Amino acid sequence: MNAREKIAALRKLMKKNKVDAYYVPSADPHMSEYLPECWKHRAWLSGFTGSAGEVLVGMKKAGLWTDGRYFLQGSIELKGSGIDLMRMGEPGTPSKVQWLAAQLKKGQSLGVDASVISVSAARSFDEGLAAHGIKVKYFTPNLVGELWTDRPDPVLAPMVNHPVKFCGEKVESKLSKVRAAMKDAGCTAHVVAGLDQVAWLLNVRSKDISFTPVVTAYAVVTNRAATIYVDSRKVGKGIAKTLKGKAVIKPYDSVWDDLKKLGGAKKSCVWIDESCTNRRVVDTLKGAGIHSAASPITALKAVKNAVQIEGFAEAHRRDGVAMVKFLKWLETAVPAGGQTEITASDQLAKFRAEGEGFKDLSFDTISGYAANGAIIHYSATKESCAKLKPKGLYLIDSGGQYPEGTTDITRTVPLGKPTKRQIECFTRVLMGTIDCTMIPFPAGTTGQRQEMFARRALWAIGEDYAHGTGHGVGQYLGVHEGPHSLKNIDTPPLVEGNILSVEPGHYESGKFGIRIEHLAFVVRDEKHSTADKTWFTFHPVTLAPIDTSLVNKKLMTSDQVTWLNQYHKRVYKELSPRLDAGHRKWLKKATKAI
Amino acid sequence: MNAREKIAALRKLMKKNKVDAYYVPSADPHMSEYLPECWKHRAWLSGFTGSAGEVLVGMKKAGLWTDGRYFLQGSIELKGSGIDLMRMGEPGTPSKVQWLAAQLKKGQSLGVDASVISVSAARSFDEGLAAHGIKVKYFTPNLVGELWTDRPDPVLAPMVNHPVKFCGEKVESKLSKVRAAMKDAGCTAHVVAGLDQVAWLLNVRSKDISFTPVVTAYAVVTNRAATIYVDSRKVGKGIAKTLKGKAVIKPYDSVWDDLKKLGGAKKSCVWIDESCTNRRVVDTLKGAGIHSAASPITALKAVKNAVQIEGFAEAHRRDGVAMVKFLKWLETAVPAGGQTEITASDQLAKFRAEGEGFKDLSFDTISGYAANGAIIHYSATKESCAKLKPKGLYLIDSGGQYPEGTTDITRTVPLGKPTKRQIECFTRVLMGTIDCTMIPFPAGTTGQRQEMFARRALWAIGEDYAHGTGHGVGQYLGVHEGPHSLKNIDTPPLVEGNILSVEPGHYESGKFGIRIEHLAFVVRDEKHSTADKTWFTFHPVTLAPIDTSLVNKKLMTSDQVTWLNQYHKRVYKELSPRLDAGHRKWLKKATKAI
Repeated sequence: MNAREKIAALRKLMKKNKVDAYYVPSADPHMSEYLPECWKHRAWLSGFTGSAGEVLVGMKKAGLWTDGRYFLQGSIELKGSGIDLMRMGEPGTPSKVQWLAAQLKKGQSLGVDASVISVSAARSFDEGLAAHGIKVKYFTPNLVGELWTDRPDPVLAPMVNHPVKFCGEKVESKLSKVRAAMKDAGCTAHVVAGLDQVAWLLNVRSKDISFTPVVTAYAVVTNRAATIYVDSRKVGKGIAKTLKGKAVIKPYDSVWDDLKKLGGAKKSCVWIDESCTNRRVVDTLKGAGIHSAASPITALKAVKNAVQIEGFAEAHRRDGVAMVKFLKWLETAVPAGGQTEITASDQLAKFRAEGEGFKDLSFDTISGYAANGAIIHYSATKESCAKLKPKGLYLIDSGGQYPEGTTDITRTVPLGKPTKRQIECFTRVLMGTIDCTMIPFPAGTTGQRQEMFARRALWAIGEDYAHGTGHGVGQYLGVHEGPHSLKNIDTPPLVEGNILSVEPGHYESGKFGIRIEHLAFVVRDEKHSTADKTWFTFHPVTLAPIDTSLVNKKLMTSDQVTWLNQYHKRVYKELSPRLDAGHRKWLKKATKAI
Repeated sequence: MNAREKIAALRKLMKKNKVDAYYVPSADPHMSEYLPECWKHRAWLSGFTGSAGEVLVGMKKAGLWTDGRYFLQGSIELKGSGIDLMRMGEPGTPSKVQWLAAQLKKGQSLGVDASVISVSAARSFDEGLAAHGIKVKYFTPNLVGELWTDRPDPVLAPMVNHPVKFCGEKVESKLSKVRAAMKDAGCTAHVVAGLDQVAWLLNVRSKDISFTPVVTAYAVVTNRAATIYVDSRKVGKGIAKTLKGKAVIKPYDSVWDDLKKLGGAKKSCVWIDESCTNRRVVDTLKGAGIHSAASPITALKAVKNAVQIEGFAEAHRRDGVAMVKFLKWLETAVPAGGQTEITASDQLAKFRAEGEGFKDLSFDTISGYAANGAIIHYSATKESCAKLKPKGLYLIDSGGQYPEGTTDITRTVPLGKPTKRQIECFTRVLMGTIDCTMIPFPAGTTGQRQEMFARRALWAIGEDYAHGTGHGVGQYLGVHEGPHSLKNIDTPPLVEGNILSVEPGHYESGKFGIRIEHLAFVVRDEKHSTADKTWFTFHPVTLAPIDTSLVNKKLMTSDQVTWLNQYHKRVYKELSPRLDAGHRKWLKKATKAI
């Protein structure tokens, strides 16, 4: 079936189910950032393969809502599908609610698979459409799933233990913290729906999703028990033994019966996190009191303990070795010819894979040469990728998954002689990276304010970057992790043990892109903290040289220059024992003080 | 009667009115920042004269809630009153709701004069106390007012026109903008309750309140008419003639009958601003639909037009002349002896009063010598004020009201040889003032983020100041005016025509205080704006030298030094034509490039 035929078939099912429109989001039941293949309903139906996009199908029209990153790709992939491309953020593009209000009459209804929409997103539909007299019917099974006869099976990789030697905290300790939070909130149970939350809480990992080693599972924590609901075929003897006495293991689909019982229990008050819990969970809990708030796991998970902090440091030493090999390789491979954005990122992945304990990349590498470097979410394809030539700038943003920690690093390197403009912009981006990392900030400061330090040197010349400065990072979990961030949004104050990326950039459309990114821990600033007031600062864990041929020292303050030289000294000190003589020599030169 | 007797008498009235506790805030019916004498019920009842404080009287206990500025003053003034001092922000201090929950039983009630509590504050009481089964009874008249037999009469200064030559916009134009906003919101009427809103809308001023030349009045705007409710004794023939055809003038108390009619009218929807509208207004409007949102006047008023911008510039030239006279005077008066914090601030007021068009100070001058400079809200009294000696730092924060504009300036000057530490801190405060003023910021930036530029140089050495960086300013109205600010709170993005103070500081308890403050307009940054993106920057209007003997040039960037020298050049250029030879010579030296 092509997209047009699939949509026609879906409309028949819609009629049968008495709904006048149907919603097909890009989501799994756990609101994951990266989807397992078997949950890519939207891609299967529409043919559009971008990471972000939602489809609405009415009886006459259909539309796909996506953002500016995917306007070009969407217009190509949707050709002939009968689905209109809805360019979000462009003037005149209707919102989903506005579009539905135009397509549907009063009293008609929208159908939604309750298991692939979050409680909060469902509320937006309910409230927005009520004003137009349109009803929302939540039900399972998924109508697209019924048509998708060759839908891939779920991944059955085994669930494994993430040992305390890496994560630094026993399941019992984590459960008691969650129960203490439940008690404070007056809750009798907490349904844990976010996959990274389940993984952190029960120290389990798997390979269900690309880049993020989570297990597809729900967990339910009560005062007496913890239960994990997971496909039985993923549960070997080892993990069953490890979890014994800590959590009961039940089949994935049995969660619905148990939630129903929980709803029917006397005086039950269930904690759910609306952002990562699907609507079906709340519907199934009918009868229970609902406490809606961010899961207590979110804040706990974001504060790394001493074992994790050392683990991240070790992961970054290995990652740094791979980066050094890659940066040295670039210097000869590019002039030798035959390299592309793809061969280069493959080479870096190969260097990473040589490292001890390497498990996977932590996200799709962004390998952008020249003008492609200016496309913030650029994804090179084998067919269209650029050849690397010995001129212009090259930007590579990549990361790895190690059981000790997750990495995420961006470096920008000149493949030939850089221009004056490129040097000025690189220096100002670097000044932002340094200021944001180096300047102490008092306890209570949010990332929304702190990230201004990263922008200052660029703003001073009227330049800015259209993305946040940084995000939290999980340990051998999601490379993007809340609740904290360095963005223009309201997030909780930064606290000791948080780890964030610091990644200002500068992009000149059609010309070049610059970004410098490292991960850094929020640490207590001993020099400035007093008995009354705690000051924090960032300690970078990423270890790789920053190209000094792109630096104009004259623009920098002496403090910034000192920081860069000390950082480079540390990079050499920590990485050189792991390198052979040739790479050591190269690194010595690359980290020379300016 | 002393406070103890007054409270006993109040309890009798409470019994008679069947309430078990009574709330006495520091407020007038328009939620003004500065109160007219006749609305100082809380001060009369309790004996506590601080600007911030709320009293709750129960049948057995009574308490006064105030903040850290007033803990010392409160403990002295409340002695023997039987009123407990509630130190807000200190651990263990109950909130008002917690205190009431402890004093009152379920089913008992709190009495509140509906005319001195805002709709939003009333809602906090309603919601907080409902959880404890306590009712809130809103009624008039004020029980304290009934006891206060020698209550001063309201001020009967005439209401006068604030001419278009100063404010730059006709009443008709302002009304049509308000009506357009009402139409967009589906409203048939807007009750204007904030005194600065009434003054701005109808171009009227008076002298009802110290420092802020507002008129005690309500205004009601409908599609057809505008009505001002004001004490008839304040209305002369001139203003009656000016307002004719623009607004109907009615007696102040007749507002209640008219609001009742408005509530009874068919399909009426009334816009009220909960932050400055008292609860009695909403109760009286019973029957009408209520649209709760910030008054459209707030945002309109905050964008100054070309006439106002030039007016502010002119007011600041006059104010700058007074500051120059004062700073020169200090240099000889202090070594000569006999000067105090009070005589100095009196002298500055005298220099201001000599200027053309000077009407009043815009707030109580903060004149703080040495350790007193470290008290952020310091208020010198004749009895306790410090003598000025030729050593240490002296901080003076003051402002004037001119029909053209309102001023607010802080300068810190060394009365003797400054220490190295004082020079470093002053320089870093100055770097903050300069960065916050000089660095361009893109449209959409909020003050919460922009003000980080003012803190950066201090944070770099682990220092911070415990106050916001700046506030909006009215034109010949309140020296503090929203909705925008440079503070760690969520306010709308800064827009062209906003005027703000920029006032970072540094305070060493028991030693000295430093603050440098100027007012500045948000202006379009022509150098960096493009067709796609607007950049803003600040243009300072305050004109007075910054003491360069406190500046360590080595800490500053060359851009910061250039800014300071260009600012001083401008100060000399704009003020020197208005000075005599002696002052001109002094200013030449004071503004010499570093």
